[in-house]
This record gives sequence, C-alpha cells and structure tokens, in this order.
Amino acid sequence: MRTIQAEVIGNKLEALRKQSPLVHNITNYVVMNSTANILLSLGASPVMAHALEEVEEMAGLAQALVLNIGTLSPAWVEAMILAGKTAHKKNIPIILDPVGAGATSYRTETAKRLLTELPVSVLRGNAGEIMACAGVQGQTRGVDSQTDSLDAIDQAQAIARELKITVAMTGKTDIVTNGETTYLVKNGHPMMSRVTGTGCASSAIVGAFCGIGDDPLSDTAAALAIFGFAGECAAIHIDGPGQFWSNLLDELYKIRPSDLPGGVRIEKHA
Amino acid sequence: MRTIQAEVIGNKLEALRKQSPLVHNITNYVVMNSTANILLSLGASPVMAHALEEVEEMAGLAQALVLNIGTLSPAWVEAMILAGKTAHKKNIPIILDPVGAGATSYRTETAKRLLTELPVSVLRGNAGEIMACAGVQGQTRGVDSQTDSLDAIDQAQAIARELKITVAMTGKTDIVTNGETTYLVKNGHPMMSRVTGTGCASSAIVGAFCGIGDDPLSDTAAALAIFGFAGECAAIHIDGPGQFWSNLLDELYKIRPSDLPGGVRIEKHA
Amino acid sequence: MRTIQAEVIGNKLEALRKQSPLVHNITNYVVMNSTANILLSLGASPVMAHALEEVEEMAGLAQALVLNIGTLSPAWVEAMILAGKTAHKKNIPIILDPVGAGATSYRTETAKRLLTELPVSVLRGNAGEIMACAGVQGQTRGVDSQTDSLDAIDQAQAIARELKITVAMTGKTDIVTNGETTYLVKNGHPMMSRVTGTGCASSAIVGAFCGIGDDPLSDTAAALAIFGFAGECAAIHIDGPGQFWSNLLDELYKIRPSDLPGGVRIEKHA
Repeated sequence: MRTIQAEVIGNKLEALRKQSPLVHNITNYVVMNSTANILLSLGASPVMAHALEEVEEMAGLAQALVLNIGTLSPAWVEAMILAGKTAHKKNIPIILDPVGAGATSYRTETAKRLLTELPVSVLRGNAGEIMACAGVQGQTRGVDSQTDSLDAIDQAQAIARELKITVAMTGKTDIVTNGETTYLVKNGHPMMSRVTGTGCASSAIVGAFCGIGDDPLSDTAAALAIFGFAGECAAIHIDGPGQFWSNLLDELYKIRPSDLPGGVRIEKHA
Repeated sequence: MRTIQAEVIGNKLEALRKQSPLVHNITNYVVMNSTANILLSLGASPVMAHALEEVEEMAGLAQALVLNIGTLSPAWVEAMILAGKTAHKKNIPIILDPVGAGATSYRTETAKRLLTELPVSVLRGNAGEIMACAGVQGQTRGVDSQTDSLDAIDQAQAIARELKITVAMTGKTDIVTNGETTYLVKNGHPMMSRVTGTGCASSAIVGAFCGIGDDPLSDTAAALAIFGFAGECAAIHIDGPGQFWSNLLDELYKIRPSDLPGGVRIEKHA
Repeated sequence: MRTIQAEVIGNKLEALRKQSPLVHNITNYVVMNSTANILLSLGASPVMAHALEEVEEMAGLAQALVLNIGTLSPAWVEAMILAGKTAHKKNIPIILDPVGAGATSYRTETAKRLLTELPVSVLRGNAGEIMACAGVQGQTRGVDSQTDSLDAIDQAQAIARELKITVAMTGKTDIVTNGETTYLVKNGHPMMSRVTGTGCASSAIVGAFCGIGDDPLSDTAAALAIFGFAGECAAIHIDGPGQFWSNLLDELYKIRPSDLPGGVRIEKHA
C-alpha cells in the first residue's frame, strides 16, 4: 500500500462523527476557545479541565487526552501528569503538543518530563519543538519554528524510534512517523499560520481521531490531512485571516467522506 | 396571562441597552472572550475579574454577578464566594452556571456549595447539570447533557421550590420556573450547540437582564427567548458554525423590540 | 513638521512585516486569543507566557513586552515585574495597558507599582485608566471609561512629563504625548468599542511598532493610526460586531503603505 486510502480516512471521519469522542484538553489559555470550536465543528466533544481536584475523573470520562504546554505553569504541569496517569490506566491515547519547546528551558524540560513520565501516543509539534523534545538543538523562536520540516524526516524517524511514539512534525509538509512507517501529508495552506492556534487545533484533532481509532500512525495522518484539506478549502475566496478562520470552522463542519478522494494528499515515504 | 408579552420583553431589551448594566463574570477560560462579545453585542458591559484582592470591589460596581464553574479551581471558587457575598450585601442578582456538574465530583460539590453559601437568583444549566446540583443522578457527559429537558419539567419545578430560586433548564425547549410559575421558551437553533460557549453566554445574558429587572423569572425567560431568537436568525443562510457565530453577534446587535412579536416563543406551562 | 507623514508610517509598517517582531504578552485571559490574532494579521509574532519559571527567558527573546492587567492576580503581577526587569536589561520597550485602573484599588495600585518598578516606555489606556495611574480620581466604570479624552490633553501631557514616558490616552481622539510633543490620532470607529479587546489589541500593536522602532512617540501614534484606519475600513458594509471583527483582522492583513495617505489622520497638537 503506497498511502492511506481516502476511503479509509472517510471511514474514520464518519466514525468520529458518530461517536463524537470526548477529548479532554489541558491546554493553553490562548487557544481554549478556538480548540473547542474546532472540535465541535468537526463533530467531536471538547472538554477543558485543569484542576488537580478533577483531572483524573475528567480524563476517566474521555476518549483522548490532549496536553498542550502553550501557557504552562507548575500547577498545570502537575495536572497534566495526574490526568496522564489516568489516561494510561484507562488506555486512552495521550497527545502531547510541546508548544514553544526549545524557546525556554522550562518548556523544553516540561515537554521532556511529560514524555518520560507518561506513555504519550503522539507528539505533535513543529520541527524545532520536536527536536527540542529530543534534545536536539533546534531553532525555535517564540512558538514558531524556523526549520523546514522536510529536511527533518530522518530526525523525526529517529525520535519516534527512540521515544517509541508516533511523531507528527508539522510544517509545509507534515511528517508522520512511528520510526518504521512514515507518511508525508501534503495538505495545508500558508494562511493557517496567520491565525493563532491552528497548530494546537491540529493536535486536538489528532486526539479526536486517535480517540476513536486504534492506530495512532494512520489516525494522526488522517487527522492532519483532513485538517489541512479543510484549510485549503477555507482559503478560497478570502480577504484575510478573519474570513479564513470563519471558513475553517465551516469547512470542518461540511467536509464529507466523498470530498476526500482527490482532496487528501498523503504519500508513504519510501 | 398565558405568556410574557413580546412588548414586555421589548421593554426589557430597551432598558438593557439604555442602562448597559455592568455584568461581573467569574467564568471559565474557554468562554471569557466569547461571553464578553455576546454581552457587548447585546448592549451590556462585561467585566471579568477573579483575584481575591479585587472581586468584592468589582462586584460592588456591578449590576449582576455571573458565576460559571467551567474551568474551576480552588482559588476561583473562593473568589466566587467572596464576590457572591458582596452581591448579596448589595442586593444584586447572582446567576450560577454549573458547567459540567455531574461530570466530576468537584464540579458537583462546588455547585452545591455555591448554592448553599450564596443567595443565587437563577441557576442556568442543562438538565443533567441542574439535576446534579440537586443531588439527582444525572447523565452529564463532559459538559454536554444527554437528557431531553422536556421530560424534566416536574424536576425543574421541584428543584426551584427546594432551592427557592429560579431554575432555567435549557435544552431544545428551555424550562424557566420558580417552582410556581413555569415558562417554556421554544426559541433556539441546533447550530447553537455547534459553537462553544452558547450555554455560558445564555447565563451571561440572563445576568444582564436580571441586572436591570426586578423579576428573575420573567427576566430569565425574556433573556433566553431573545438569545434563542437571535440564534434562529443567525442560522439563516449559513455554511457552518464559523459564519453562525459571526451572525449571532450581529443579530444580538441588530435585534429590535419590533422584531419580537412573532419572533419570541414563550408559553406558560399549565 | 505638522504631523507624521504617511510615508513614514508606511515605512514603519513595512519594517514591521519584514522583521515580524516577537511581542511577549503577559495579558488577560479575555483577549489572549484576539490579541494573538491581531498581531498575526498585522504581521507580528505573538507569544504569551506568564510562568515565573520562564518569563525572563521569553522576554529575553522578544522585541517588545506588553503588560496588561485585565485579569490580574498576584502571581501574574510578579511575572510582569520579572519579565519587565529582563526587558529593561535588554533595552526592549515595555508597554503597559492598565485595564480597569481606577475601577478597583488592586488594579490602580498594581498599575502604579508597575510604573514605579519598571521603565515603562508607553502607557496605553483610556482617560479614566491613565488618570487613575497618575493618582487623579478618574471615572472608570468596570473597564470602560466615561471621560471624553479630548478634555484631557493637558492632563495627558502632565502625566507624561511626570512619569517620563509616552502616554497614549485613547478614545474618540487618541492623545499621544511624551509631555513635549503631542499628536492627536483621529482614526477609529465606534464599532471598535462593541467588540472586546480592541483596546488591549491596540496596546499590543503599539508594542509591535515600538519593537521595531526607536521613537516610542511616533511609533505609538503610527500604531494607533493604522489600527484606527483598519477599524474604519472594517466598518464598511457590516451588519454588526461579528462581521466587524472578522473584517478587522482582514484589514490589518491587507493594509498597505499606499493606503495610508488620505487614510491616517494624525495632527500635531499646537
């Protein structure tokens, strides 16, 4: 098989909408609203909860746990650990978005700690962030990466093997790899980087797909392809980022399995 | 009188825009921005403040206090209690939105504690949340209810009587009752559940109307009818939730008393 | 020179887009998302970080630091001080937005403390907030000012001289003064006060312009003129605040130096 068939991706999308998985997000303040709206538009059920008093119970209700360190602080990191341990016991997937890893030591160390203490299924970030998580001196500036992610296939694979997880290194082309099999997702649009929270949203969507699937590698590739394709559709006939964001929610809501053949562009890396 | 006349609701709306009540929200991170925009679009003045150092003073400036436990944590709960005590002294209405009560013990217990320690005027939630507040085993899943709220009129009335408050149990039909008189608000649109924070926004709008009125029962029914009607108007000619949200703000801004006859649908329950 | 030439403002805009300055925001929960989107639309790079563990390092990466007390609490204030000291060492501009100063003692005292302990470059607020920062009994109500800012030119100048900073007192006409030279920025649209966070967004834009410039006075006037002009363009053909917000992001994205002559309206005050 040279790729993931559009039909397979369509089936995942249908299953997601039927099951409407509860995705527990412990995420940053900037994107809480936008992440919730992205998940609702797609057909998933978002919940945000960070109190030590309830994260275990909430994670226990969820089909996926998404941890995002975009505006981290110590109490939130402890909550992530607690929720993650429940996710582990319940065997639901944990997605880690190491926002800004490499930019500050606190973010880098926290991302590494979460990867060490929790059985993360998918690590989704840009090239600089992923490399920082693996101890490679990256080029993170603030929360944006300066690295062309295509140069980084080998490194993504090595990191996936070392950490025994699925790595989703997103950029112009998204690299999704478990260290053995690697997919290149070529969907997406430059306008996605002109609105805040699309990276975080992609991690949440990965959470939703992994929450209803059983193969993090193909679930992640499917999630990123659908999100990128929705972004392409949303960028048609727009004046700027305001209209784009509104369209992006609409496209995630409207997208149907029959739209996917000819729409999603996933290649298996030789 | 078989219902609340559209003219009465129109008068409330005019009064709200004239007075632009300051609504102090101690609410969740997800909906702070959207709640502020909803209130501004309608013509009210939102303020968010949660520090123990200032909540009493801020509540002292407000015409209504809206407490929302959507992303609660201990310090925020203490702030809610403090602000609520000021609201009590000043005799301004307190609206409680028990987001996710029933989903975790912490939320259920916190909602109950707020109801016990503060003279809440209006409890606004979905059926599962309201029942959890009253100790009824509900069916809350995450922050979404699975109960058809129409089945719950008797329970809503019983809870209102027991707690001596106005209960607004929202769903396909909204039940607004003080235990003696009950209104059924039949406005609204399914798309409202495809954007985050519409429930929270409805609580804030209830706060704005109660802040300028003196009858929580009819003020709450009016608020929910206007919000639901705006939702119906916003759902015309849309592609999805992105456009819907933008339209919803526009409709709240544009809605005029003369639009209400034939628009708002409130029935008095026999 | 009777004003700041449109060409000069256009050059600043071009420089901003070329350099895409990293603007470190320690801001309130309500506007984190909207502020990030405003900065991205304009062409700057936002980052939000508030943990004591990382604010020094993050401020050290930034070209400007924007402090906003809209939902302050003690730990955040300490973070502002820490980040501000790094900004001072690095000689990057600090912009202070004293949201709600005058409404509660905690906000007033915090704003004063930040002004005392940090070398703030620009103080951006409405008339009531600015006067509260200077110990003048203002008329702040919640987070909205009731003062006509044009009456306040003398006071703005006196405050700028006393604090040795640039004061940007925004309202129908924006007063930008370092105590010696004063510009009146006459751009803007009433609809800007019907969406939340435009004041906060203006402070962030001031941060972006100051981050790439070396003259806080003209950088601030340019920032406010461009933002106000974008607001005017965004208000054409709209139904309400929802469409306005979307347009505002689009206009900031589309605005070109060639649009500025005849668009920006800055007068030098005699």
